[in-house]
This record gives sequence, structure tokens and C-alpha cells, in this order.
Amino acid sequence: MALYVQKFGGTSVGTVERIKKVAERVGRFRKEGHDVVVVVSAMSGETNRLIALAKDIHDEPSPREMDMLVSTGEQVTIALLAMALEQQGTPATSYTGAQVGIITDKAYTKARIKKIDTEAINQDLKAGRVVVVAGFQGVDEEGNITTLGRGGSDTTGVALAAALKADECQIYTDVDGVYTADPRICSKASRLDTITVEEMLELASLGSKVLQIRSVEFAGKYKVPLRVLSSFEDNEGPGTLIVADDEENPSMEEPLISGIAHNTNEAKLTVLGAPDIPGVAARILGPIGDANIEVDMIVQNVSPDGKSTDFSFTVGRGDYKKAKALLEDIVTEMGAGKVVGDTAIAKVSLVGVGMRSHAGVASLMFKTLASAGINIRMVSTSEIKISVVIDENFTELAVRTLHTAFGLDKAE
Amino acid sequence: MALYVQKFGGTSVGTVERIKKVAERVGRFRKEGHDVVVVVSAMSGETNRLIALAKDIHDEPSPREMDMLVSTGEQVTIALLAMALEQQGTPATSYTGAQVGIITDKAYTKARIKKIDTEAINQDLKAGRVVVVAGFQGVDEEGNITTLGRGGSDTTGVALAAALKADECQIYTDVDGVYTADPRICSKASRLDTITVEEMLELASLGSKVLQIRSVEFAGKYKVPLRVLSSFEDNEGPGTLIVADDEENPSMEEPLISGIAHNTNEAKLTVLGAPDIPGVAARILGPIGDANIEVDMIVQNVSPDGKSTDFSFTVGRGDYKKAKALLEDIVTEMGAGKVVGDTAIAKVSLVGVGMRSHAGVASLMFKTLASAGINIRMVSTSEIKISVVIDENFTELAVRTLHTAFGLDKAE
Repeated sequence: MALYVQKFGGTSVGTVERIKKVAERVGRFRKEGHDVVVVVSAMSGETNRLIALAKDIHDEPSPREMDMLVSTGEQVTIALLAMALEQQGTPATSYTGAQVGIITDKAYTKARIKKIDTEAINQDLKAGRVVVVAGFQGVDEEGNITTLGRGGSDTTGVALAAALKADECQIYTDVDGVYTADPRICSKASRLDTITVEEMLELASLGSKVLQIRSVEFAGKYKVPLRVLSSFEDNEGPGTLIVADDEENPSMEEPLISGIAHNTNEAKLTVLGAPDIPGVAARILGPIGDANIEVDMIVQNVSPDGKSTDFSFTVGRGDYKKAKALLEDIVTEMGAGKVVGDTAIAKVSLVGVGMRSHAGVASLMFKTLASAGINIRMVSTSEIKISVVIDENFTELAVRTLHTAFGLDKAE
Repeated sequence: MALYVQKFGGTSVGTVERIKKVAERVGRFRKEGHDVVVVVSAMSGETNRLIALAKDIHDEPSPREMDMLVSTGEQVTIALLAMALEQQGTPATSYTGAQVGIITDKAYTKARIKKIDTEAINQDLKAGRVVVVAGFQGVDEEGNITTLGRGGSDTTGVALAAALKADECQIYTDVDGVYTADPRICSKASRLDTITVEEMLELASLGSKVLQIRSVEFAGKYKVPLRVLSSFEDNEGPGTLIVADDEENPSMEEPLISGIAHNTNEAKLTVLGAPDIPGVAARILGPIGDANIEVDMIVQNVSPDGKSTDFSFTVGRGDYKKAKALLEDIVTEMGAGKVVGDTAIAKVSLVGVGMRSHAGVASLMFKTLASAGINIRMVSTSEIKISVVIDENFTELAVRTLHTAFGLDKAE
């Protein structure tokens, strides 16, 4: 008999019918004798509906009032799910973030959890009840309602699992696990049984939208076993278990590469011939950061004459025009260099903790891409990741070719 | 500079546009230097939407979960109204019933307020902020969300006004005050400047749906000056002030009659020839009460032979068939009597504290109805009220004729 924290997102509770399906699934776990705490998001569409109401009233609503407003979304779901559980004969009690004692800091709309009071939950579990908790929300020390930011329900689930010392935190979603590559463009992609927190973090930040990054960090920090599963009836597989990095006992059989991520939502900007003097990177990136534009890959090369440098980075495509205009001002100010850019790029990344102990990943990657006739435009590496920027047209070819080359193709 | 508690119902905050109008009105009071606490209901339609969701899931949802669910309606409104106030330059803070410390008993869906913590409100008022409080809801001693039952936002308003010792509790509604009769059927009806709590209670229970009865009782008990006003922009009259009964200093000029109420939603049932023995009324009404059927007027007459009695009462028309069937069982059991009934009736009532000190109201009423050719089928009186039951066809004629006879017609 185990204690599970099960989190269901907005799509999984998007209609009354789906809420009933969730209740059935939770009820089955309960009937098997397990203790279950359920964390739910707002019904899909509800948060956007509330935000639209607010925007009709105020261009920049007070963050406190936004949290007051949108936190009602999860409150509706917990009440409905508790009703659905009771309708099916499973005793259940719902709690808002405030009621269950999820104490956060005061950073409205992006609050961080400070502590969780588990007394009420443990009492209910002991009495054989399923506990239904509103995800995404908490309360500061003064009783003001806060929210953890979009996707924060995953974090609520992991934080509750940590506080309750749950055996597993199960995140139900619309995919049945983490894949070696995006199955929509790579038909040979296969579901991973396990993946490490570190790898998952690299994959999440590279564009795999399965889990919210913060919840994965949290799971790593508090060693919470985290499982991603499908919430759809007809697909009750084991999902993917995300395990803490165990540096003392690394698996002998660790695969070189766990997965391949791709991202076609970035654009590349380069300042050609910038003066190669200290502080030039800061001078170029300062105004970009000030404009709240997020920069992803950064590459700098010294040009052959040793006096000037080529400085490249990538930004989200939505920020491309704004970033380019800012760069042109900077170049004019510096009196040197030239700005060029490209929006038709793709970033393809190999991720795997196995990379740490094996050389040759980069050379195999480059060789594979070269034999497929794909030109590499930018390279960036971390300890367990290699990312390359290529022409967008070649995205699928690159992912498929690398998938085969690194032995990830599923057995037929 | 006064302290006002202003309550706006669901229609007054039914759309984003109307919420902005409410913010403008509240802002004007604030700019005049008054302190304002605003109590709001859920946007019209929202509570019904939530109840429909619950009914799709469970025939009889747990009352605790129902309160968890429907209390989100007011929470949405308070956040939106606080945003609208800030948009117009009026600093504002919203509070749920739980946050502001409206402590109730545990009677989910029909809780009663036990106490209110005014500390947070007073601090905000001192800081020059408008305080926006969710009506209709509170929290029990253990932190469970409760609601006060439909229309409970009026009660929240009055209770807050009492706790804060406000100068006035203003209930904004879709009528501009309390009238001497229903203006839709009596064109000469006029708005009352003042009415006593006692009169208002009689009028409310007689079918004038301006205010919730409980809030009026509360206002009387705690001597809260209560004003009913129109929430519509183009009708900013003074409304009607509901004043506490002042038995020590009655006004010398108290009018005989304050208003005429009518109700065409009742049906009459009579047991003819019931045995005139102790306990017969209880025997007749017991099963009616057990079936949760509310009984209004009750009249009993001894029949000429002194051995049997005719027992009549009125019930809501929706309960007529059920009540009649129950009565027929009772009559069969008693082995005596006969059940007759009529659904085409109207109850017309005169209300006025002036009645207490003046004789002759009943005789003038009966004389007036007789000269209009209206037959009286039942009579019932209280200290400040006379009600008659007549044929439904004569409702408007009766109200208009009595309105003129008792000098209530407005000056031309």
C-alpha cells in the first residue's frame, strides 16, 4: 500500500465527463488500498476566460487581484472532482491552497512555496478519504492568495509529494511519457522507461513541454520519484519515471544519449566585426536583457584578424524584430560591426548523462549531420548536452538521422 | 465624512461594463471623502452556471463541496471590481469571506454569521483604500468555506455595517426604493422615503422582493440604518431608508398604512367539517410540515353546530397538489371532513405601524372591497398587517382601490 500524489492538468479535467473519468481512475487506486492525494488545475479554458475578463477592465491588473481572480479556477475543479469521487462511492474532501496550508512568499503570479502544513491531509488520509488539493495556488503569511505561475500545478504536486513523503508523484498529461524524440516528426521515437532529473531539465528547457521545469528541479532537490503518464483511458502504460541523479551509483549501462530535442521557435542574430575589447558582450546583450528579451544560445568567435569578433545568439522568434532594432542601435553607437539575422533556423540537441563519461558524441553528431548534407550554423555544449543550429528545413531529417545514428530507434 | 457599506447584487455586476459603472459610483463616494466598504454578489448567471456543473456530476452534492464551488462566484467579482476601482484611480483591496474573517456556524449552504473580524478592513480604510468584500460567504471555525444561502449578500452587507458601526448600509438593486404598492399594477404607487423595519419585514414576507428578510431582521436587531437604492446610473434618487422601530419616540404623524402588498403565488386548501376536538389542527398540519411544505395563512372557524370545524390554510402553488393529496389521506384517516381547494386566489395585505394605534383599518378595508364588488374569502391579521384572500381576477382592482381609499396615491 503506497501513498500517491496524482496531478491532473486542465485538459484532463476540461469537462464534466473528463472529471468523472479522473474520479474513476483515482477511485481504482483507492480501492486497491493506496492513499491518494489529487492535485488539479483549472478546467482548460477557464484561466484564459478569467484573464480576458481582467484585461477588459485593466491593462495591467494588480498582481494580487489577478491571483485572487484566477485562483477560483482550481477551486471550481476541486469541488467538482470531490463531488464526482463521492458520486462513485469514494469519500473525498477538497482543499484550496490556503486551506491546506501551502505557504508561499509574496511574489504574486509567480510565488514560491515556502512550506506546507500536512496535518489536515494526513488526518483525512487516515480516515480513508481521498484529498483533493487545488494546484497552482497558495497563500502568503498574511493570508493573501498567491499563485505559482502558469503550469504551477506540477510544482504543487511535487511539493506535496515531498512534504507527505509520498512514494510517487504521478503527473497525468496528454502524452504517455517522455520520448527519445518528438514522435510527430520521428516515427521511430520510443518511450523512455526512466530518465534522470538532469536530463529531463535539459529536455524541458529545450522545448519538450511535458513537464514544468520548476517541478522537475523540485523533484530532484527533494528526491521525489516523479512519473509522467497519460490521463487517457485507453492508454494506461507505465509512463516515464524521472529519477534523481545518483552520482554515487551511476548505472553501468547508462546510454550515451537519452533523447533528442528540437526547437523551431528561435531566431539567430549575429553582430559581425564587433571590436574585440573587454565588455563588448555586455554592451551587446545589456540592452537586450533590459528589454526583457530572453537569450538562449550565445556563441562568440574571434575573427582571423584578431581585432574584431563575431558575436551570435538566439532569441524567441516573437522577439526577433525588436532585438534586431536594438542591435542596430548598438552597432551604430559602437561605430563598428554589422547586424545579420535569420529566422528560419532550428535548434537540435542531444541530451544524455552518458555523455559525461564518453568522448566522441560531438564528432559522431557532426559526422552524421555532414553525411546527411546538413550544414551546422552554430554549436553550443553543456556537460550533458550538445545543441546545434541548422536550417529549419532540415529539422526532421536531422532528428531522424541522429536518432538512428545514436541507436535510439525502437525495435520493430 | 461618513462610513458607508454599499452592496451591489448580481445584476449590478453582471457584465464588465456594469462592474465599471459600479466602480465609478463607488469612486465618487470615495472622492467626496467618505470611507467605503463594498459587498458584491456573483455576476448574474454565474451561480446558476456552477450549480448546473455540480448537478451534472452529483444529484445531491455534498453541501461542503457546493459551498466550495459556488463561493468562487463572488471571488471573481471582488477581484474584477478591485481592478476596476484601481483602473479609475481609486486604491482598493479585495477580500474573500474567509480572509476578512466572517466566521459562521457549520451549516453549509445556509450558514449564519457568528462574528466578523474588522481589523484588516479598518487598516485598509485608514490607509485610504476601498475595501471590496465577497458577499454571501464566510468560513467556519475550522476554515471550511460556508455560504449564507441565496440572497445572503444583503446579510453580509448589513452584518459588516453593524460590525464596522457604519453610518449607513446601502443596498443597490434594480428598483429605486420601496413602494406603497407594486408600480406595475398600481400606477399611482409612490416611493416611500422611510419605512420601519417591522413594516419592511411584513412587506418582504408578503411578496415584495426588494430585500432579503434576514438582512432586514439583522438591521433591526443591530440598529443599522439600511437604504435601498437603484444601481442604475440614470436614477440616482435617495431610495428608501429602512429605520429601526423606535417604540419610545413614535412619530406623531405616522401614516395609517405604509404599503399594500399582493401575492398571487399561493393556493388555498380547506378541510370542511373536521371534528372540533383538541389536536385537530396539529393532526392536519403535521404531515404538511413533515413534507417540507410551507404554510402561510391559517384560519379556523367553528361551524354552526359546534361539533365540527372548517380549517383553511394557504400554501405555495407549487405545493398545492402534494398538500391536497396529503390532506385527503388525513381526512380518510380521521373518518370525517372533506377537502376543497382553490388555486386562483390572491392575497392582498395592508401594512403599517400606524395600525397599532388606530382602529377602523379593517372596517375601511372591508367596506372598500365590498363597494368594488370584491368578495373576501379569508382574513388574517397581525398587529401591523391585515391580509385578505380574494379571487385572483380582482387583484389589481383591489390593490388600486385600497391604494386610493387609504390616501396613498401620489400627488399629481
